[in-house]
Amino acid sequence: MILVNGDVCTQVAANDRGLSYGDGVFRTMLMQAGKVKNWSLHYAKLVDDCSKLALTCPDNDLFKKDISNLSSNENGVIKLMVTRGIGMRGYAVQSGMPVTRISMWSAMPQFEDKILHEGIRARWCQLRLSRQPVLAGVKHLNRLENVLARSEWQDADILEGLLMDESGNVICGTMSNVFVIKGRYLYTPDLSGCGIAGVTRARVLAGAESIGLMTKITVLSVADVLAADEVIVTNSVIGIWQIRSLAERRWEAGQFTPLIRAYLEMDND
Amino acid sequence: MILVNGDVCTQVAANDRGLSYGDGVFRTMLMQAGKVKNWSLHYAKLVDDCSKLALTCPDNDLFKKDISNLSSNENGVIKLMVTRGIGMRGYAVQSGMPVTRISMWSAMPQFEDKILHEGIRARWCQLRLSRQPVLAGVKHLNRLENVLARSEWQDADILEGLLMDESGNVICGTMSNVFVIKGRYLYTPDLSGCGIAGVTRARVLAGAESIGLMTKITVLSVADVLAADEVIVTNSVIGIWQIRSLAERRWEAGQFTPLIRAYLEMDND
Repeated sequence: MILVNGDVCTQVAANDRGLSYGDGVFRTMLMQAGKVKNWSLHYAKLVDDCSKLALTCPDNDLFKKDISNLSSNENGVIKLMVTRGIGMRGYAVQSGMPVTRISMWSAMPQFEDKILHEGIRARWCQLRLSRQPVLAGVKHLNRLENVLARSEWQDADILEGLLMDESGNVICGTMSNVFVIKGRYLYTPDLSGCGIAGVTRARVLAGAESIGLMTKITVLSVADVLAADEVIVTNSVIGIWQIRSLAERRWEAGQFTPLIRAYLEMDND
Repeated sequence: MILVNGDVCTQVAANDRGLSYGDGVFRTMLMQAGKVKNWSLHYAKLVDDCSKLALTCPDNDLFKKDISNLSSNENGVIKLMVTRGIGMRGYAVQSGMPVTRISMWSAMPQFEDKILHEGIRARWCQLRLSRQPVLAGVKHLNRLENVLARSEWQDADILEGLLMDESGNVICGTMSNVFVIKGRYLYTPDLSGCGIAGVTRARVLAGAESIGLMTKITVLSVADVLAADEVIVTNSVIGIWQIRSLAERRWEAGQFTPLIRAYLEMDND
């Protein structure tokens, strides 16, 4: 089911700037028992991302109403998009044009239960993320790098690919944030040059202390990843997955992954 | 007027990957007397750009039919888009999904005649283009950098902004390619790291010799631009404009701009 500006509708204007230029932002969230998990954090991030593009973020109440109208399906994935709306030809932004608000429900993807015990296989992507400080961290609609990186493999047993920036530092997965645990430290890449600063990433950082980990946002090398005790990827739909196989490297089941998962399973709101 | 996959239609699916991820390419062309100028070059570029994203480019005949159906308006701007089509959630590309083909007509923008004699005012943009060799040169739908750069000024008398890469080298305008003329040389930036390699850029490079200019594709510094005899910007809609004012720098009317314009006015097809 799809709502466009609150109305049940499967289409958007062909001259919407979201399509023309990727001029907008989005969020993907988990709906459980008719409720969006961590809604307040997601909405705050949407407001923040909109402000980075000088977009007016629709009111919280409008999205809440959309979500309520979508929630006849109690469980699933909610995707929200905000675009700069319909535009004339050309990059210049016309003032006073209303944004387009798109809210979608889709079925929860089915991941095998064994992932929770056995972790996942991952790979290194060849594509290097470009550096753009003005857009870094924002979940905007210019996602060709993610598309191309995800196109690098077909093997259905490999569930994520890790991406580096041009300097060869590790930034994220194609659809996830990445963390490494070494001793009592939890490290995650600095995203001031590229990558998306996800809500689940923020929750992991916020919860680390409660499970006995100190956190560092840092430059993360491939060697750091390979030397880690545990490597994990997170997003709002998958939660947390431990990488147990990455190219030639193998890891045993980590002690912290289940603790972080238990922390994430609490709803923050 | 808009055609979507050949049908008169003003909308596209809200889950089209063109909207979700900017997963597609586009072209903007001039239609004169019902005919698209330099169509063969534009179509060849569309095929090339599609191949860079592993998109199947629709047949030439399909676009020709679209253009014929749009050409009841004899003069104007034709915009063509090819997206990866409707997609499920997630970055992975499903094989066998048909692309979405969008063809639009819009009225020719009205530029003042005096531009041809007096040139234009331009400015430097603050935003630095990111470096992404895999996508450089391609006119894809991830155009947030262009949008943000064009948002840096409101003054309607300034018709273009010039953009640099992270190293401070000059790459392009927000909607144009840039050239500088110094002596008998025509220089234009190397676009292997960022920027769009436009059809009009290719035509200028091809025609330079016939008007007595040697060409060099090179790294172009701000100092090179400021020291130039003539600085010009080109695209398929505006043709060629001489920059006569750029921040503090002023130029007299150049001798080569009218010659290049005359060359460009010939249809290559």
